[in-house]
Amino acid sequence: MATIDIGLAKTEKYASRESGDTVELVERPGGGFSVVMIDGQGSGRAAKTLSLLLSSKAVGLIKEGVRDGVVARATHDHLFAFRHGQVSATLDLVSIDLKTRTIVVTRNADSPMLLLDGTEPRVIPVDSGPIGRYQWTKPAVSQFPLKAGLRVVLFTDGIPQSGRRAGSAPIDFVAMGAEVIAPCDSSQAVADAVLAHALERDQGRPGDDMAIVVVSIREAGSAMPIRRLQAQFPLP
Amino acid sequence: MATIDIGLAKTEKYASRESGDTVELVERPGGGFSVVMIDGQGSGRAAKTLSLLLSSKAVGLIKEGVRDGVVARATHDHLFAFRHGQVSATLDLVSIDLKTRTIVVTRNADSPMLLLDGTEPRVIPVDSGPIGRYQWTKPAVSQFPLKAGLRVVLFTDGIPQSGRRAGSAPIDFVAMGAEVIAPCDSSQAVADAVLAHALERDQGRPGDDMAIVVVSIREAGSAMPIRRLQAQFPLP
Repeated sequence: MATIDIGLAKTEKYASRESGDTVELVERPGGGFSVVMIDGQGSGRAAKTLSLLLSSKAVGLIKEGVRDGVVARATHDHLFAFRHGQVSATLDLVSIDLKTRTIVVTRNADSPMLLLDGTEPRVIPVDSGPIGRYQWTKPAVSQFPLKAGLRVVLFTDGIPQSGRRAGSAPIDFVAMGAEVIAPCDSSQAVADAVLAHALERDQGRPGDDMAIVVVSIREAGSAMPIRRLQAQFPLP
Repeated sequence: MATIDIGLAKTEKYASRESGDTVELVERPGGGFSVVMIDGQGSGRAAKTLSLLLSSKAVGLIKEGVRDGVVARATHDHLFAFRHGQVSATLDLVSIDLKTRTIVVTRNADSPMLLLDGTEPRVIPVDSGPIGRYQWTKPAVSQFPLKAGLRVVLFTDGIPQSGRRAGSAPIDFVAMGAEVIAPCDSSQAVADAVLAHALERDQGRPGDDMAIVVVSIREAGSAMPIRRLQAQFPLP
């Protein structure tokens, strides 16, 4: 039996009280799970409100059984209709679909995605922009069979932008995959390691909100079908 | 700085392929988080569909900013309107409300709740029944200040019903609080220990779906405001 292992780490821009990155994990009515990650334009309260509003829309649709491509289009249409193309956000939707036995990644984003499956880490560039700007925006969709060893790493642009203020070279994602991610065991360890790497590049003062979502398919020997969920949130 | 620590463990009735217990964790638009736990009547696919439908309703309302007491009433009204009083479900809603700095527990349930805060474990009996049966059903609400050391443990009726087939005495919740729960550190450790206790009483073959949600306020020394989320789901 294999196990789906999901990990998330998230922090906010330095001296900002709220993160404009919102991540939600919900159960799909047809079986399986979806992770929604929204990065609202800007930072602070306005960005947070925007990302909560869009995550509310996306989560509501997913929970109603709406297919992922339509969730992304509808969330875009909603933003575009009410903000007239003046406000943007990125949207990442990762679904573990038990019917097709695939991981489906639906993206309107501007950060690359990393894929690890035992061989050289692959950097999958994003070929869809954010939602909210142009009328007929649609997402880029990729699909991967659920097999043990597969690992998908997604993050908001606080990660690739890290180190920019300090004038560092852009992150080498292939090197990060091999040096920072590959040695990690759990999905949470990967998320923590990528966050620590970006924080170091920002000298401990994140230049933007940061969120990392990791989905891994791991071999597991559990006899009982037990599902587990943990969360830790520092109280402000 | 204190940390909110949330843990969940969940399994299904023996030889059943799906659990009628659905648990979701979502971020509240006003700040903070809510956990929704629904136990749909019966077991198997019909119970799972029911609990996913009701969790969809409840999660959608929470994400829209609707207050908890109204979420419970609206979820009940929806079920009652479409199933004419013939189908019931339990609903537990635990919110970490950062505005009032309290934990708010809103229940339409039939299992007691455990409260631990350093002294003798307290068993808080439920004084509200399930949703779906009678026209004006409303929830019971309790509120606790967010302070380090507080721990709330909620579960579906698979836990108190465990051991019944084997003719065991009912669970002594005060003893379970002191012996099974008190030695645990993290919320996940508590959820796992309570599940293991109930599984043992059912000789490893759960007589009903089981879910345990644990919310703890822990002292923490983290300097960075990092949020984390982990989930593990065995693939069927």
